[in-house]
Amino acid sequence: MKIGVWLVGARGSVATTVVTGAAALRAGLAAPVGCVTAGADFAEAGLPPLDTLVFGGHDISSTPLPKRAEELSRAGVVPPPLADLVRHELEAADAEIRPGLASGVPREDETQAALAQALIRDITDFRDRLGLARVVVIHVASTEPPVAPHPAHQSLEALTAALETPGAAVLPPSSLYAYAALSAGCSYIDFTPSTGAWLPALDELANARAVPYAGRDAKTGETLLKTALAPMFAARALAVRSWSGTNLLGGGDGATLADPAAGESKKISKERALPAILGYAVEGQTHIDNVAHLGDWKTAWDHITFEGFLGVRMSMQFTWQGCDSALAAPLVLDLARLLARAHERGHAGAVEELGFFFKDPVATDEHRLQVQYDLLRAWAGKLA
Amino acid sequence: MKIGVWLVGARGSVATTVVTGAAALRAGLAAPVGCVTAGADFAEAGLPPLDTLVFGGHDISSTPLPKRAEELSRAGVVPPPLADLVRHELEAADAEIRPGLASGVPREDETQAALAQALIRDITDFRDRLGLARVVVIHVASTEPPVAPHPAHQSLEALTAALETPGAAVLPPSSLYAYAALSAGCSYIDFTPSTGAWLPALDELANARAVPYAGRDAKTGETLLKTALAPMFAARALAVRSWSGTNLLGGGDGATLADPAAGESKKISKERALPAILGYAVEGQTHIDNVAHLGDWKTAWDHITFEGFLGVRMSMQFTWQGCDSALAAPLVLDLARLLARAHERGHAGAVEELGFFFKDPVATDEHRLQVQYDLLRAWAGKLA
Amino acid sequence: MKIGVWLVGARGSVATTVVTGAAALRAGLAAPVGCVTAGADFAEAGLPPLDTLVFGGHDISSTPLPKRAEELSRAGVVPPPLADLVRHELEAADAEIRPGLASGVPREDETQAALAQALIRDITDFRDRLGLARVVVIHVASTEPPVAPHPAHQSLEALTAALETPGAAVLPPSSLYAYAALSAGCSYIDFTPSTGAWLPALDELANARAVPYAGRDAKTGETLLKTALAPMFAARALAVRSWSGTNLLGGGDGATLADPAAGESKKISKERALPAILGYAVEGQTHIDNVAHLGDWKTAWDHITFEGFLGVRMSMQFTWQGCDSALAAPLVLDLARLLARAHERGHAGAVEELGFFFKDPVATDEHRLQVQYDLLRAWAGKLA
Amino acid sequence: MKIGVWLVGARGSVATTVVTGAAALRAGLAAPVGCVTAGADFAEAGLPPLDTLVFGGHDISSTPLPKRAEELSRAGVVPPPLADLVRHELEAADAEIRPGLASGVPREDETQAALAQALIRDITDFRDRLGLARVVVIHVASTEPPVAPHPAHQSLEALTAALETPGAAVLPPSSLYAYAALSAGCSYIDFTPSTGAWLPALDELANARAVPYAGRDAKTGETLLKTALAPMFAARALAVRSWSGTNLLGGGDGATLADPAAGESKKISKERALPAILGYAVEGQTHIDNVAHLGDWKTAWDHITFEGFLGVRMSMQFTWQGCDSALAAPLVLDLARLLARAHERGHAGAVEELGFFFKDPVATDEHRLQVQYDLLRAWAGKLA
Ligand SMILES: NC(=O)c1ccc[n+]([C@@H]2O[C@H](COP(=O)([O-])OP(=O)(O)OC[C@H]3O[C@@H](n4cnc5c(N)ncnc54)[C@H](O)[C@@H]3O)[C@@H](O)[C@H]2O)c1
Ligand SMILES: NC(=O)c1ccc[n+]([C@@H]2O[C@H](COP(=O)([O-])OP(=O)(O)OC[C@H]3O[C@@H](n4cnc5c(N)ncnc54)[C@H](O)[C@@H]3O)[C@@H](O)[C@H]2O)c1
Ligand SMILES: NC(=O)c1ccc[n+]([C@@H]2O[C@H](COP(=O)([O-])OP(=O)(O)OC[C@H]3O[C@@H](n4cnc5c(N)ncnc54)[C@H](O)[C@@H]3O)[C@@H](O)[C@H]2O)c1
Ligand SMILES: NC(=O)c1ccc[n+]([C@@H]2O[C@H](COP(=O)([O-])OP(=O)(O)OC[C@H]3O[C@@H](n4cnc5c(N)ncnc54)[C@H](O)[C@@H]3O)[C@@H](O)[C@H]2O)c1
Ligand code: NA
Ligand code: NA
Repeated sequence: MKIGVWLVGARGSVATTVVTGAAALRAGLAAPVGCVTAGADFAEAGLPPLDTLVFGGHDISSTPLPKRAEELSRAGVVPPPLADLVRHELEAADAEIRPGLASGVPREDETQAALAQALIRDITDFRDRLGLARVVVIHVASTEPPVAPHPAHQSLEALTAALETPGAAVLPPSSLYAYAALSAGCSYIDFTPSTGAWLPALDELANARAVPYAGRDAKTGETLLKTALAPMFAARALAVRSWSGTNLLGGGDGATLADPAAGESKKISKERALPAILGYAVEGQTHIDNVAHLGDWKTAWDHITFEGFLGVRMSMQFTWQGCDSALAAPLVLDLARLLARAHERGHAGAVEELGFFFKDPVATDEHRLQVQYDLLRAWAGKLA
Repeated sequence: MKIGVWLVGARGSVATTVVTGAAALRAGLAAPVGCVTAGADFAEAGLPPLDTLVFGGHDISSTPLPKRAEELSRAGVVPPPLADLVRHELEAADAEIRPGLASGVPREDETQAALAQALIRDITDFRDRLGLARVVVIHVASTEPPVAPHPAHQSLEALTAALETPGAAVLPPSSLYAYAALSAGCSYIDFTPSTGAWLPALDELANARAVPYAGRDAKTGETLLKTALAPMFAARALAVRSWSGTNLLGGGDGATLADPAAGESKKISKERALPAILGYAVEGQTHIDNVAHLGDWKTAWDHITFEGFLGVRMSMQFTWQGCDSALAAPLVLDLARLLARAHERGHAGAVEELGFFFKDPVATDEHRLQVQYDLLRAWAGKLA
Repeated sequence: MKIGVWLVGARGSVATTVVTGAAALRAGLAAPVGCVTAGADFAEAGLPPLDTLVFGGHDISSTPLPKRAEELSRAGVVPPPLADLVRHELEAADAEIRPGLASGVPREDETQAALAQALIRDITDFRDRLGLARVVVIHVASTEPPVAPHPAHQSLEALTAALETPGAAVLPPSSLYAYAALSAGCSYIDFTPSTGAWLPALDELANARAVPYAGRDAKTGETLLKTALAPMFAARALAVRSWSGTNLLGGGDGATLADPAAGESKKISKERALPAILGYAVEGQTHIDNVAHLGDWKTAWDHITFEGFLGVRMSMQFTWQGCDSALAAPLVLDLARLLARAHERGHAGAVEELGFFFKDPVATDEHRLQVQYDLLRAWAGKLA
Repeated sequence: MKIGVWLVGARGSVATTVVTGAAALRAGLAAPVGCVTAGADFAEAGLPPLDTLVFGGHDISSTPLPKRAEELSRAGVVPPPLADLVRHELEAADAEIRPGLASGVPREDETQAALAQALIRDITDFRDRLGLARVVVIHVASTEPPVAPHPAHQSLEALTAALETPGAAVLPPSSLYAYAALSAGCSYIDFTPSTGAWLPALDELANARAVPYAGRDAKTGETLLKTALAPMFAARALAVRSWSGTNLLGGGDGATLADPAAGESKKISKERALPAILGYAVEGQTHIDNVAHLGDWKTAWDHITFEGFLGVRMSMQFTWQGCDSALAAPLVLDLARLLARAHERGHAGAVEELGFFFKDPVATDEHRLQVQYDLLRAWAGKLA
């Protein structure tokens, strides 16, 4: 019984680390560090084992996975001999990558419905050809700008009609991928802050097709820390007055987010947690700077001021130096296993219990990391 | 219905901030920032209101509270006009302070039992004279060195006998205070890392007298952060490899902890949380430096290295700049209210549900801050 | 022999700290910490003693100095009893403050020449009425946006003509103040990144009137550190690859710089030092965030990546927590004393040897702090 | 014309990086980043070119250099393909390594003079066999504890006599190496905090043999920063009140310094700079922790409090993340070139102008980095 993992952005840093790492784990070349579902709390949940996962995906880049893995090796993300040792698996996955949609904007005489059909064919072909029980589609492509509101986003009926209008770009690429995934009866995960399935019409579609979906924007650094730390201030009744953050990163993600429009999407999802946890607004800006020299290594500095007893002013600051792809990849594997199982068990629509993984969790306002973990664990218990 | 709060170390920085702050809150001069029990989760727990609290205590210093409050005002712990505005309350509390035991070592012809009797008289006199429903004794005196094991610590019977030996110093001062408190039928809190009630014989005594006790060593800085952050690494299956800490502080506490023996007690209690949360040992030292220029403002720097997916090495660091007395004082008020209520409701012996407040919680190994908070809240619900 | 110090922005935080501090030093209530010219290297330079300084100035705010000093006292910039103790001197200085020019834009029927005449009258009246030997005009008003180039900026002749055009705003306010100061035969200092005397026409004027001027933008925090640290990388032949900075500050300056146009002036002057010291361009952005809760306390975080032997990548970061007005005020006094003496000794035009004090030093590209100090000391030796 | 570089501790991390790096530079595989003498300021000094350097040395370890280079490659100190590419040069240098003295303590019937003779023979044999014009001996072995004072340290005559006493351990190993080097007519550098040539008797020897020597303890991290930053506080008349430091490091050096006796030597040399630069004592401790997980990557955190105008308290902190061997190795090459040239030009005894390189510079109290650089440059000018 094989499970497909269809990566949108399949030649990106995250995706490459996912495929390399899954092969390394299968070959016993690495321990599942960073894999949440490898822990005892998930042993009884009936999750598909790692070696049942088969990879494919869409990308608009043509740099093959083995070459991407070598680049990541030179950058220190993948340990030196590994890329070589799993070359075969990288080639196999690369052979399952199909050209994606760069802009999603149809030609004058083309419709987005037709574009989506092509994507659906790629995914169902993958499923059928390889005899996969189920496919989880995971969006790990470059972050898009926030989408402009459109009436057709509000209902599946309106959307279906609008997609048939020649030349009309109703959905951004990430949402076209989500539409295709759900239409193909696949579960779907938005690992990025892009719009993806985050539209009423697509939520309707997921429920109609009885497939689960989750998102959005994996939390792996600054926001992860925010959701671990802010509950401390809340529980101790300390009044947070400012929370300022600067994120320095390079790599593909850094270059993408240097575009203010794409950066905006990331900032929006980064700024959800704090007011939700504290219950009040806090001043402070969040910067995302492209520092090419840092490559895939992100450095985040956060500075927090707060007031305590009798109005005394205090502060704290932290610096996080994480390798983004190494933090993200095991979560992709976790989410694939969890969503595949949820699909199998008949879950449909937004899975709010996966909020633990995301900056901007769908269908819930709970951002406290430990509480999210407890909810996840309880839910996993019910998947058994 | 008045409740007594008997502070051992009643003229210290923490105690002075407690008395000043309680008066300020009563007079509406300050909001209860930093007071956990002022939150909605505790509204139904039947806790005694702040204005029922009456203060007294033991100290070996004779500097009066109004003068200590002025010193704290100059140091920025207490906002400028406040010490003046509540001078009357400071004087009233100061009048209830009795000389404490400096070393607890009896003269050749004296017994520790007799020393304890004098302490008991001070406390019961306070209770009787002011018509207090209950008294909570809280140890906020200077940290003592760890105590040498003694057979008489193992049972109440052995202890009772040993205390009658002339010239014998069986208990350190903090434990004599605890012994006196429990013997007087008062609940007891060890806010410091000193031994206090942390002996089998005294646990037996608390149960025999049907009084609750809690401790030890309030967590207000580095350890508070550890117990907020370490669960994040655990939940994300990241492997913490080293956790190093440097604490810089001045003031009375800084001077006390500069003595390696006293510092040792603090380090022991600081080092509990990490292995308990992670489930494995982590290399790294914890330094406590006396930096007189910092006064009551503590700066803690922690540096953490961890491994993620495929063995990638990452790190984080934080700097915490807190005013220790301002962080501690509201917790003293919280604990006084909670333990007075627990006493009223018939709780006896160690209260493990108060672990949220402590570095080295009695009767439990749960150190995860959010889980501790959830346990506390649930327990408070049952106090109602 | 009295020396006048005419502060443009005389009711701002820096100016208020200057007047308060000068009075405190004169009264022996404080030591000259932070005063460069109080050191042995300047003892023989013939600088006017502090108690010969008399203060006045322009401002567009009407909040009196004693009130501003109380505000700074509450904010922790001025120690509590001081504002009261020097109240008399604050009132005296406040009586010498005249309304400034808000925008410098003349009415349709008015000329900038006429506006400047009014400023000149204020300054000369101050000098004549109080019998001052010399007046140093120091711009410590809110930072202005960068000025748009104008042909009349290129020569004194063109400028003189243009200022006579009714309704024309040829100069920004800071430059009108500089024009007035130099025209009145006063030396002039641009303590801010505003344009001030930084125009060929005004340089010509200073030389014509034989008065010295200096600037611009005092270095008191992040840039001060840059110019102390970057020479280390240069001397050790380490290759700096990125230098990113985030500045958090509140107060009047924070509010002003939150305006992107004004912030731009500050960023320009902040970005001079690095390429000048290193001799090559370095990637990295500089953020200036208004965090009201920080008040006059600035927190700057800088993150630097560099390459060493065999291309090894390393990094460093620092956090600076400074009280801006306390850092600036003694430098204002230093500059007043130094420029008054230079004027007395006949120096005319830009004084490049004062580069030690500035982010964007006039007439020189030397930014290395220690080298600047050595140049300053040597120059002071020649003032003797 | 070949120059010998005789490394005591020739198989350590620093030495291995030196030999690897010199070969890489010669082969054009790397640029001389981190090499001070590669800069324009040294172009005319007549320094021996890098490709005239020939390596040998003493060590008590038998792990061959090619293997050590591979270890450093895995640790990220040496870029992956390099160790392989220069394998031949590593083997050649390894063939010139002779067994060193582990403790320097002679057997009952042996004298330290005899031990020294064996060392001298190793060095002169190296020089003669390879026809070297000169040899520079550089101590890069594990740090020793501070030496106990001994009367024979005070004069060459007393020392010569004492060394002849059978069984007597008058000199620690580092000083025996220095004695051997100077006796053999070689110049000598103490790159570590060990005693080395730092004894009156050995200074006398250096002068008698007309050879130059320099030291001690290369500054490459925390102390380098101290000597860049402390002059800033001094020049700005800011009063430093505390300077606390924590150094985390692993590798061989970390393991050695975990021994309190060896750590003591390092702390002594680290603590020289601050009082020398500031002119007053500053409170604060310096910790050196062995954190094995960090390997050769040192993390230093320094926290500084200072007072400014009107007593306002401010602070700064920095975190330095450096690769120690990569920082040290180019300085070894610089020092070898500079001292070989000084020897050629007839310099004898302590070379104070090399203070730029050291934490505890011989024969001078000047610690300000920029001033040291200016002295070095001026001296290099005279070598021409
Ligand atoms: N790494 C983390 O910690 C983390 C956390 C949260 C979110 N994310 C998000 O994950 C995404 C991937 O990050 P990354 O570091 O791998 O970035 P990357 O730039 O290395 O990879 C992105 C890939 O997406 C491809 N792509 C771009 N547009 C596409 C399209 N229209 N259709 C198909 N493929 C397309 C690119 O060609 C590239 O291969 C980003 O959006 C990032 O914000 C990452
Ligand atoms: N402030 C915090 O955040 C915090 C957190 C956890 C624990 N603590 C602990 O609380 C205690 C008090 O801290 P502080 O800052 O007020 O210290 P402090 O030095 O200001 O006060 C201690 C007081 O205890 C008194 N004292 C000493 N020995 C005594 C004795 N034998 N009997 C009675 N009184 C005695 C002293 O005279 C002094 O007045 C310390 O042990 C500290 O470690 C404080
Ligand atoms: N404090 C430092 O460390 C530092 C360092 C470098 C430069 N500066 C510069 O010094 C200046 C003053 O800083 P501050 O903190 O005192 O700011 P502030 O906002 O407290 O004071 C500025 C003052 O200038 C006055 N002002 C504004 N426009 C004016 C005009 N057109 N004419 C006359 N007065 C006018 C305001 O009314 C106010 O009183 C700022 O430009 C700041 O960027 C400060
Ligand atoms: N790397 C830096 O930035 C730096 C800066 C200043 C000083 N230092 C000093 O340089 C020295 C070397 O550092 P490292 O990182 O290479 O250490 P390391 O532990 O890797 O190497 C030390 C070498 O010395 C050898 N050794 C030990 N005792 C010896 C003896 N008696 N005779 C001959 N050889 C002996 C060891 O076998 C080992 O090969 C240390 O003393 C260190 O404190 C290093
Ligand atoms: Na300049
Ligand atoms: Na010296």
